[in-house]
Amino acid sequence: MATAALEKLLQVGTKIVGVGRNYAAHAKELGNAVPKEPVLFLKPTSSYLENGGTIEVPHPLLSLDHEVELAVVISKKARDVPQATAMDYVAGYALALDMTAREIQASAKSAGLPWTIAKGQDTFTPISSLLPKEMVPDPDNIELWLKVDGDLRQKGSTKDMIFKLPFLISHISSIMTLLEGDVILTGTPKGVGPVKVGQKITAGITNLLDVEFNVEKRQKKGSS
Amino acid sequence: MATAALEKLLQVGTKIVGVGRNYAAHAKELGNAVPKEPVLFLKPTSSYLENGGTIEVPHPLLSLDHEVELAVVISKKARDVPQATAMDYVAGYALALDMTAREIQASAKSAGLPWTIAKGQDTFTPISSLLPKEMVPDPDNIELWLKVDGDLRQKGSTKDMIFKLPFLISHISSIMTLLEGDVILTGTPKGVGPVKVGQKITAGITNLLDVEFNVEKRQKKGSS
Ligand SMILES: [Mg+2]
Ligand SMILES: [Mg+2]
Ligand SMILES: [Mg+2]
Repeated sequence: MATAALEKLLQVGTKIVGVGRNYAAHAKELGNAVPKEPVLFLKPTSSYLENGGTIEVPHPLLSLDHEVELAVVISKKARDVPQATAMDYVAGYALALDMTAREIQASAKSAGLPWTIAKGQDTFTPISSLLPKEMVPDPDNIELWLKVDGDLRQKGSTKDMIFKLPFLISHISSIMTLLEGDVILTGTPKGVGPVKVGQKITAGITNLLDVEFNVEKRQKKGSS
Repeated sequence: MATAALEKLLQVGTKIVGVGRNYAAHAKELGNAVPKEPVLFLKPTSSYLENGGTIEVPHPLLSLDHEVELAVVISKKARDVPQATAMDYVAGYALALDMTAREIQASAKSAGLPWTIAKGQDTFTPISSLLPKEMVPDPDNIELWLKVDGDLRQKGSTKDMIFKLPFLISHISSIMTLLEGDVILTGTPKGVGPVKVGQKITAGITNLLDVEFNVEKRQKKGSS
């Protein structure tokens, strides 16, 4: 797929399917059991933020948790796709941050409520430009890293994913039709933690790309 | 807005924002507290089903719960919209069913997990054609009803909503940008319950429209 077509994919897409707890070491750091099947949640595409943008922390929070993740971008309609052909539905990859208001998520979890407000707000899905799949011949063995103000916070390899990409695509497509431009966020390695207002995130896929985002308080439209 | 433009709106939209527990009598029937702020969740637009279609019950379930709801369709980008002008962002209305795999939702709730699999599967959002807003001068006082095989199961008025439309639009737009064609499902009145494989749902907005849907076992693509 040509670069221009690839860049348009995120605008065409209608959903972001997040996978939770897909690295055993991260599941443990949040005190969660390693899941028997993927934990799935949705983020709206209105939460995307392009490289170089500002992550907005909503009032009254002063920080959000960073989760660095490999994003898989779907090339065409996928429904009940077997694992054997699942990778045929991948257009490319990106680096994404699954920004999470951890306190809101914790209250939601204990109340049995959805994670939508914790994960779905505008700018909560910073994402890099897209890499065509040809540039990532071994997506099951790439290194993701994330720094806050230059300090390394997360570094992990996709080889530690519990559920691998063909399984995730096949499984999700058995639950809901994946469409062109839809994105799967494949989970985060250990090391998640808060990034505060005024700090800066840099993150990357080693040897492939990197991104940077400022973190600021959200100013409501019309407020000073 | 002309009818043709209105009909295209759902194809343009990128999200469905569900509101949970927005009628006190329904919150109580599921043993839930009446919420202090709206419970929000997302459904993917891949879950839409047009009037006359077949609701598919995934294996190994034999029924889904019906929730009849007023759907509000957004006309244009809305971010931090005040209640006073919130209704300017409404293109029209529809009748929707927020089909729910209640057992899956119950397990998710007790495990602190998202409702995505319980509510986000293909055909889980049957929806009527759209009514332009001019045809619904008083959306806070319309009657929704639902029958299974001709037996009345739900009948309620939007006047019993805890959070009214201007508040919902304003509140949701303060969390995430609403875009043209996005839909808000405004919650269900009491009377939810299972509809089984082989049964038929009819539902409507009194004096305005009605819809019908069959309920069948889902056949996986490629399986017999
Ligand atoms: Mg969506
Ligand atoms: Mg994550
Ligand atoms: Mg509902």
